[in-house]
Amino acid sequence: MTTLTRFCLLAIALLHATAVSAQAPVPDPGGDTPRNVILIIGDGMDEQQLTIARNYLHGAAGKLLLDSLPLRAAVQVLTIEDKVDGGPVYVSDSANTATSLATGAVTSRGRIGTSAGSDQPLRNIVELAHAAGLRSGIVTTASVTDATPAAFVAHINFRLCENPSLMQEVVYRDIHLGSCAQHSKARGGAGSIAEQLAASPLQVLLGGGSKHFDVAVEGGQRSVAEQARAQGFRLLYSERELAAAPGGERLLGLFAPSTLPVRLQGEDGREAEEPRPSLLNRLHPYLGSVTLPEPMRCEPNPAFDGIPSLRQMTEVALAQLSANNERGFFLMVESASIDKQAHERKPCGSIGELAQLEEALASALDFATQHPHTLVLVTADHAQAAQLIPHESLFSAYPIPLYTPGKLARIVTPEGAQMAVNYATTNFIMEEHTGAAVPLYSNAEGAGRVQSFLRQPDLFAIMRDYLGL
Amino acid sequence: MTTLTRFCLLAIALLHATAVSAQAPVPDPGGDTPRNVILIIGDGMDEQQLTIARNYLHGAAGKLLLDSLPLRAAVQVLTIEDKVDGGPVYVSDSANTATSLATGAVTSRGRIGTSAGSDQPLRNIVELAHAAGLRSGIVTTASVTDATPAAFVAHINFRLCENPSLMQEVVYRDIHLGSCAQHSKARGGAGSIAEQLAASPLQVLLGGGSKHFDVAVEGGQRSVAEQARAQGFRLLYSERELAAAPGGERLLGLFAPSTLPVRLQGEDGREAEEPRPSLLNRLHPYLGSVTLPEPMRCEPNPAFDGIPSLRQMTEVALAQLSANNERGFFLMVESASIDKQAHERKPCGSIGELAQLEEALASALDFATQHPHTLVLVTADHAQAAQLIPHESLFSAYPIPLYTPGKLARIVTPEGAQMAVNYATTNFIMEEHTGAAVPLYSNAEGAGRVQSFLRQPDLFAIMRDYLGL
Repeated sequence: MTTLTRFCLLAIALLHATAVSAQAPVPDPGGDTPRNVILIIGDGMDEQQLTIARNYLHGAAGKLLLDSLPLRAAVQVLTIEDKVDGGPVYVSDSANTATSLATGAVTSRGRIGTSAGSDQPLRNIVELAHAAGLRSGIVTTASVTDATPAAFVAHINFRLCENPSLMQEVVYRDIHLGSCAQHSKARGGAGSIAEQLAASPLQVLLGGGSKHFDVAVEGGQRSVAEQARAQGFRLLYSERELAAAPGGERLLGLFAPSTLPVRLQGEDGREAEEPRPSLLNRLHPYLGSVTLPEPMRCEPNPAFDGIPSLRQMTEVALAQLSANNERGFFLMVESASIDKQAHERKPCGSIGELAQLEEALASALDFATQHPHTLVLVTADHAQAAQLIPHESLFSAYPIPLYTPGKLARIVTPEGAQMAVNYATTNFIMEEHTGAAVPLYSNAEGAGRVQSFLRQPDLFAIMRDYLGL
Repeated sequence: MTTLTRFCLLAIALLHATAVSAQAPVPDPGGDTPRNVILIIGDGMDEQQLTIARNYLHGAAGKLLLDSLPLRAAVQVLTIEDKVDGGPVYVSDSANTATSLATGAVTSRGRIGTSAGSDQPLRNIVELAHAAGLRSGIVTTASVTDATPAAFVAHINFRLCENPSLMQEVVYRDIHLGSCAQHSKARGGAGSIAEQLAASPLQVLLGGGSKHFDVAVEGGQRSVAEQARAQGFRLLYSERELAAAPGGERLLGLFAPSTLPVRLQGEDGREAEEPRPSLLNRLHPYLGSVTLPEPMRCEPNPAFDGIPSLRQMTEVALAQLSANNERGFFLMVESASIDKQAHERKPCGSIGELAQLEEALASALDFATQHPHTLVLVTADHAQAAQLIPHESLFSAYPIPLYTPGKLARIVTPEGAQMAVNYATTNFIMEEHTGAAVPLYSNAEGAGRVQSFLRQPDLFAIMRDYLGL
């Protein structure tokens, strides 16, 4: 793992839940056939990311598979300060938003399945499903210990406590980022996220993050991976092992040390870059000229070779969850790197990742066609920084050098036009999230349940009620 | 009018339709009762603007009236180069998007009701309604000659040709911005936008823009206002005149020289401002400190006093259009300054304008309750620059000065929290538009007509078919 990768992994954090109950519609446990929920989360998949990907993958007048789903809503994202009855915070992170989706509670940034201020565990849908005899699974292109998957299983105060070695203090370059000491096993807690995953009732857990399972469990000799095996998981480390995985076993697939490599990258690995104004333009904004980043194409990322696709992982998960299952299941599928690549100002990475989400959605919809009582929901956890801005300025009639103060990628699209993507929320090495409401899509099973406007905790209630939990 | 205002007015431009036919569902002319369409356009009203306004007006967990509408969709915005069969352009302006909504055609930026490249007139819904004996009206907080209202009536190659004096050349500070000479009356054209409005079949036209009607008509002595009066319009210049307007007359209300003043402004008129890094920070991004713009409240804009609200104008228009009307009507209501204030980096202005849209929507929904065959649609024409970014950075654990490279407003909300709004698409004095798909809302009359994903020209087809045109 590179220093940059490590830095980026650590840097996505923010920490700190008054449980706010979501509204609970009348339960509807359904008939004799099992009911299933497939929740697909596009991390950071806001309307800008969707349009950028649609333009690149299908053209300006094209359609995503998502666009064919019959129900569409806006989802209000809710976050509070890290205290009991904390005030509103207008921009979220993936930890608190995944907690809302998984538990129906509103909490503070950085928290995994715990309440703001009081640090109490919040019951999640995987626990409810298990108690009712349903199976559960999680598939992600992130490390399985990352905030989004973690919030569906674990309870801990700080998202970066991904393995036992990080429980006392998460430090990067002498900067103290946080601690989860109160959740350590020594203090009677459930331990790190990896340990909680190993102890979970999940039927299938597929993604990246092997490095977090190589660490010795707290107070023990064996690794978290060995612990997971002892708990009944078959461990898979390659696409070949995934393809050959036998049915009827619990699967823990860890296909990269951390986040899985993404499918697409900018030409020669390029990302968005700063426009370079001439010296004269630095002296006065009406003078001189500017050199914009060279246009670039997206190309396959060589590091993606041999990595299972989100579709492959989703299909294995669906097979494992549905085989000889009279009671139904809950599956969460995360396309994580729409967000992660946007943090790093890599539009091609986000586009390729959204293409992966679309493929996983196709598999989910195929499954739902064969298994009619399957609710398929697709949403995002929060909005992101990237903006589709004019390739030719609206003000280009003015003879002035015009350019973004941020970083710009000019992408040559397959339809032969140029698409300008802007990243300009911060001077930091990682872009910020943004606060806009996010989209929600549903197949026809959501009719009467998915309203045109919902709050994020309402999605938990919809899923719980659909499954009769 | 200030130089800045003048500059800004001129600066919003961009110029240049292969008519692309929208898909045409089966006509459904309805029964004996008249059918009405109220189309409300929030100019620049994207998900970021909606969330910013929702947070301010109703709190982070609050709801807009828009959120109560039962149908919600995403609308793909389409723009092409200014040539026949021109390639895609990924970011639009209000001229070409309003043309799509009004005519069902895709055209190039800056064009009003004309085709890209071939410069041919595109038949609009007001013309279709008139031919079928229906009434039409337009209400806007912009000048009535501005791009959005203009595209529902006029046909001209360049949006800035708003009055007869601008037909030969639109110039600002010796910069040639465009020309509409080929549409001048001398050359057999229909003349400027103001002249085309004066000659239109509209029953009611309310907004700003009196300065464009004070100019003498091409080749004549009298003003465009006098011409409009000769065509049967009663002219209104104040809120009092609007309130006293008799029923049964055609009304042209011009309540300001240009755009109507907005309801809210930043404290002491402030807008988003640049963060000010210390000298040390300018030398190295990890050093020194940064001074962020002081937080501010939104306050009433004194210039709004005596200006009719969008609700008042909408209610007068609905009364005029519906009285003794057996055939139904089409009404377009535009909340223009969500966009205009975002160009100027004034979040309070955009928020107050969205509040005006909500009030006009309330009147439209009340009308629809009393007149059941009334389709109410609300959409945006394009996305805008403003972004809701974290008040406290996601990366605040790092002891580094973190700030946007753009311009920032930190708004103190009524619920006592701070909301950070970022504008960072350009170094120009006006922000750019962005390219994301836009929201569409409909009342229950849209059921079966409004799908979850549409293209902008589809809205024209939905309205046309609903009215049986």
